Amino acid sequence: MNGKMKALVKHRRGFGAELRIVDIPAINETEVLIKVKATSICGTDVHIYSWDAWSQGRVNPPYVFGHEFSGEVVEIGDKVTSVKIGDYVSAETHIVCGTCPQCLTGQGHICKNTKIIGVDTQGCFAEYVALPAGNLWKNPAEMPLDVASIQEPMGNAVHTVLAGEVTGKTVAVIGCGPIGIMAAGVAKAAGAAKVIAFDLNDYRLKLARDMGADYTVNSGQEDPLEQAYNLTDGNGVDVVCEMSGHPAAINQGLKMATNGGRVSILSLPVKPVEINITDDIVFKGLTVQGITGRKMFQTWQQVSGLLASGQVDVTPVITHHLPLEEFEKGFELMIKGECGKVVLTP
Amino acid sequence: MNGKMKALVKHRRGFGAELRIVDIPAINETEVLIKVKATSICGTDVHIYSWDAWSQGRVNPPYVFGHEFSGEVVEIGDKVTSVKIGDYVSAETHIVCGTCPQCLTGQGHICKNTKIIGVDTQGCFAEYVALPAGNLWKNPAEMPLDVASIQEPMGNAVHTVLAGEVTGKTVAVIGCGPIGIMAAGVAKAAGAAKVIAFDLNDYRLKLARDMGADYTVNSGQEDPLEQAYNLTDGNGVDVVCEMSGHPAAINQGLKMATNGGRVSILSLPVKPVEINITDDIVFKGLTVQGITGRKMFQTWQQVSGLLASGQVDVTPVITHHLPLEEFEKGFELMIKGECGKVVLTP
Amino acid sequence: MNGKMKALVKHRRGFGAELRIVDIPAINETEVLIKVKATSICGTDVHIYSWDAWSQGRVNPPYVFGHEFSGEVVEIGDKVTSVKIGDYVSAETHIVCGTCPQCLTGQGHICKNTKIIGVDTQGCFAEYVALPAGNLWKNPAEMPLDVASIQEPMGNAVHTVLAGEVTGKTVAVIGCGPIGIMAAGVAKAAGAAKVIAFDLNDYRLKLARDMGADYTVNSGQEDPLEQAYNLTDGNGVDVVCEMSGHPAAINQGLKMATNGGRVSILSLPVKPVEINITDDIVFKGLTVQGITGRKMFQTWQQVSGLLASGQVDVTPVITHHLPLEEFEKGFELMIKGECGKVVLTP
Amino acid sequence: MNGKMKALVKHRRGFGAELRIVDIPAINETEVLIKVKATSICGTDVHIYSWDAWSQGRVNPPYVFGHEFSGEVVEIGDKVTSVKIGDYVSAETHIVCGTCPQCLTGQGHICKNTKIIGVDTQGCFAEYVALPAGNLWKNPAEMPLDVASIQEPMGNAVHTVLAGEVTGKTVAVIGCGPIGIMAAGVAKAAGAAKVIAFDLNDYRLKLARDMGADYTVNSGQEDPLEQAYNLTDGNGVDVVCEMSGHPAAINQGLKMATNGGRVSILSLPVKPVEINITDDIVFKGLTVQGITGRKMFQTWQQVSGLLASGQVDVTPVITHHLPLEEFEKGFELMIKGECGKVVLTP
Repeated sequence: MNGKMKALVKHRRGFGAELRIVDIPAINETEVLIKVKATSICGTDVHIYSWDAWSQGRVNPPYVFGHEFSGEVVEIGDKVTSVKIGDYVSAETHIVCGTCPQCLTGQGHICKNTKIIGVDTQGCFAEYVALPAGNLWKNPAEMPLDVASIQEPMGNAVHTVLAGEVTGKTVAVIGCGPIGIMAAGVAKAAGAAKVIAFDLNDYRLKLARDMGADYTVNSGQEDPLEQAYNLTDGNGVDVVCEMSGHPAAINQGLKMATNGGRVSILSLPVKPVEINITDDIVFKGLTVQGITGRKMFQTWQQVSGLLASGQVDVTPVITHHLPLEEFEKGFELMIKGECGKVVLTP
Repeated sequence: MNGKMKALVKHRRGFGAELRIVDIPAINETEVLIKVKATSICGTDVHIYSWDAWSQGRVNPPYVFGHEFSGEVVEIGDKVTSVKIGDYVSAETHIVCGTCPQCLTGQGHICKNTKIIGVDTQGCFAEYVALPAGNLWKNPAEMPLDVASIQEPMGNAVHTVLAGEVTGKTVAVIGCGPIGIMAAGVAKAAGAAKVIAFDLNDYRLKLARDMGADYTVNSGQEDPLEQAYNLTDGNGVDVVCEMSGHPAAINQGLKMATNGGRVSILSLPVKPVEINITDDIVFKGLTVQGITGRKMFQTWQQVSGLLASGQVDVTPVITHHLPLEEFEKGFELMIKGECGKVVLTP
Repeated sequence: MNGKMKALVKHRRGFGAELRIVDIPAINETEVLIKVKATSICGTDVHIYSWDAWSQGRVNPPYVFGHEFSGEVVEIGDKVTSVKIGDYVSAETHIVCGTCPQCLTGQGHICKNTKIIGVDTQGCFAEYVALPAGNLWKNPAEMPLDVASIQEPMGNAVHTVLAGEVTGKTVAVIGCGPIGIMAAGVAKAAGAAKVIAFDLNDYRLKLARDMGADYTVNSGQEDPLEQAYNLTDGNGVDVVCEMSGHPAAINQGLKMATNGGRVSILSLPVKPVEINITDDIVFKGLTVQGITGRKMFQTWQQVSGLLASGQVDVTPVITHHLPLEEFEKGFELMIKGECGKVVLTP
Repeated sequence: MNGKMKALVKHRRGFGAELRIVDIPAINETEVLIKVKATSICGTDVHIYSWDAWSQGRVNPPYVFGHEFSGEVVEIGDKVTSVKIGDYVSAETHIVCGTCPQCLTGQGHICKNTKIIGVDTQGCFAEYVALPAGNLWKNPAEMPLDVASIQEPMGNAVHTVLAGEVTGKTVAVIGCGPIGIMAAGVAKAAGAAKVIAFDLNDYRLKLARDMGADYTVNSGQEDPLEQAYNLTDGNGVDVVCEMSGHPAAINQGLKMATNGGRVSILSLPVKPVEINITDDIVFKGLTVQGITGRKMFQTWQQVSGLLASGQVDVTPVITHHLPLEEFEKGFELMIKGECGKVVLTP
């Protein structure tokens, strides 16, 4: 499709971004062009927008960023059979190699040669995005476009929560950013006996409650370990979903887990963290898991299953809808933590 | 405790049972005496009452039968420390040996030397029951006594449903006796994307819907395979909980499972069943599991977690409450299939 | 590559096959042409050769059959990057769709749209074979060509044996065709405490012993259940690998498994089999698994790991080497059961 | 049994121990008296002997220490049925409560109320030891007494190695104390493709090779990461068994694991360790497990299975046999690291 489109461009090696008119991207024979209907802002986008140390070392302006979206297929490459024009889709963000030992064993989410859409390639903060057909996930026509756009981060929550048994168990979610908030809802939907959410921000703790957390603890005002043990008859929690990245919180997570418990870490602490391996991991017989991306595509199936059945209602976490033109307001809300998910409409 | 009590005695090798006055049982140093507050009728009790072939070969009248109950501890043996007088309890029905290879590896539910309460030993259709302390499970004081009494059969449902992944998956429950009805509720509470219940009895299908089944299929009026594939976009279901014991239904269960699916069988077909192993198990890569009893005591923890949190509400399945004296009416309801669980109060 | 080649053609709808001179196959941009160095005869090939009921309904002569081989890459399509000319390779036999729910979740081996090389497509009983790059598995240059050619059936053995825990456990292999013989070796290499092999054919039982079976039982001369229980102190075996396809043997397998055991079925019984589900699956808490193909590509990694390290030596199972021209002798040996694997050299 | 016996007594709050004549211990109705035939020195015993900080805070002299042994039952309590006089036995060292949530779910090895034989109770460095019947494990009469005495530490190795898949995988053992040395042998017996052992002590690296390590790396002389990647075609290892307790080695273990790998930690670092959670756990999708004790009694079954079948030969690790009277020499060898296991005969 020839023509021009609006796109939010990371335009320079510094703070901010710029709305520009650029060419609609061309597709090759295994790619698909999608008209973006809704796109949401991820923490990663905020890093790029703010031009932090990580983004300085990783991305190459100028380029279109953004990777969470839902849209409609408008053009397909000659060899594409998995989707057709008119299909509603979202996309897995990891473009994987398909040939490394991890990819060859159904573990594409930890492919050693991964490229990330909107980080290493052109992204979706635009009217159109071109993507490999193999990354697309079909959405039901009746799924609201904003809900469809946040399936990718919801997938992180689902991957973390469902990385072990949950039903009938006590679950702690530490760190109530949007993914943590969704994790509380996913844990509840999966039959957790108790979901306890921890954060320092009461606004976000309220969102966690709205999504299904049974108890919330403001770790700045209450002792999180004391609360965790009180709420579990002194046993400690069975499952910890670590989504804060704070060294103290990570250690609290290990300490609040019961013997034999699971601690699944999705967060990315910015520095090495001191861990009392002997008392907090070995003697307790804990399992600590690193969680990254979404299983391709088990996690997407689980997300679809939970959303289609109404088991998880993510609308409480979508707190703001803005036109793409008001991107600055959206990023400001994200930087201040005064929001759940912010959805932009191109 | 000396004295007499009312008890429902399987009094002879023939149909029926008799309410009698018998001695309150004595306890040894590792046993506990419980005042029975509520006791529910199991299908096994109906077999014994009706004096079918199985019970003729297994039980030895006269004795007190019954094994599902809730009650209060009124006396404890000298060496008992795990419960105290005044505690509310139910009991795991399997009295296991503790020394066979299965017991030594945390698989007591498949102990080769199991004795079953109320089948091989004196049971709980009585004002008091004496049991080994190791079989007791403590109930919260606030748990309704009738709900507490059906945790044991609910445990069968939980054991079956949670014998593999459920969250975000499609689940078929075949056979809507009380355990099947509860299985529908448990699967929904565990985040199943869709729960489809199959039976021939519309009364019980309605109870399954009340417990959370998304779809019900009367297999006498509709083609169960056609319905299963229609409701799953032609993929087949991910998980089958077989609770009917009917040869045709068992084969339908295998055929409606998707490739790589799980078929968990709790039912006890009365005769060998012809199975198309090649097409229905091997080429599909299915996992077929035999499920018996309740994991000791993981299943009880899961049951407690689901009930305490309100994730599963079993009240719809408790359709009748009767005094122990009206046991004949209770057994008649069970024989006719015009009930969910029938709870008797001694 | 233009030119002619020798190929064993299933030439008509009837018994036998014919050696012909045919065109070397052309490749497309995602395919690879391989010079076949060694190719082995599978039971499936015998079905096609003998023109049994299954093959009459499945294959369309004339075409080149055969699917087990090792060879050298001599030409690659324009888009192929995973192998290069000169690489030594074998191939996964299942050509899968990549887009069904099974393929999307790392379960390509149970893809619902699978095509099988040499059954549904042109095969490898020839000097050259053309295959999709995605099906190739690279072999170490130092791996003997005959050993490399039987990795695919060895993969069936590995998939079956390693479908659950083996180390320190007792393992029964029922049915000592070439895959059963290799299964005995794989189980031993995986640290099985005892491997007991069952068959009616003493020649093949000897091969099972040569591959590592600790005990062999001729089920025609000894009671297999009695032997299984005697050899396990009355406990029964932990793991049963069913590779016979005989109804009686399948039932023996279920009966010799200990409570909580695993029965993994790779065989394809030709008719439905009567199973005592109640006593032999449910009360025992067994797990029965259907096994088909090889996990793509976990199983291939395991095969490579076991061969490269010398943990499994499959040379005892390769009993005959023949030039492709002597295919009739090879098929005759297979039909009579007087061989392990027969390797043909084109 | 009345009478006196020789016993090695931790006699004071300071370095050393003293051989004394003490009363043969009395047993209660659920206990068993065992004549000790062989007893081996554990690292824990060395801590107690040397009177390090940990032992100063934990043990209460004077008492008999030691916990690894094999012996013969000479007297049983009135209620003991699981063993009889004349049986050969060893013992699980953890005396567990049986009633905590962990014990109730088959996870006694992480019971929160564990007492350890020879640490919290009277031990086995003596002619006789009295133990609860439930802790005993029966040995085959033909098992050598010294081999039988080291099953408990071998159980640590087995628990660590078999805490996930091993067959066909690459395994690193970091730290070649006696348990690490045995871990190398267990990994090989379980079908590991490659076992790479790391240590600073060439004497112990040689023992690891004798037990089955394919490669050994002296981490003081070679770069362990470089070696690990070289030996795995640049992929990194699939499984890391961390048995060194050194902060640098622990970090090397995380870094040498491939994406999706498993790092099982049995060691007890004396101080908190700085970990790069983001790069070394989360992005890699690692699973880090704390391993303590032996699964009761799955691990013992696995140990028995591996020893009885000859799959693991632990004799290379038993480097010294001494009479109990020469305990000072034994402890000196242990302190200097100039030995594998030291077995004392009372």
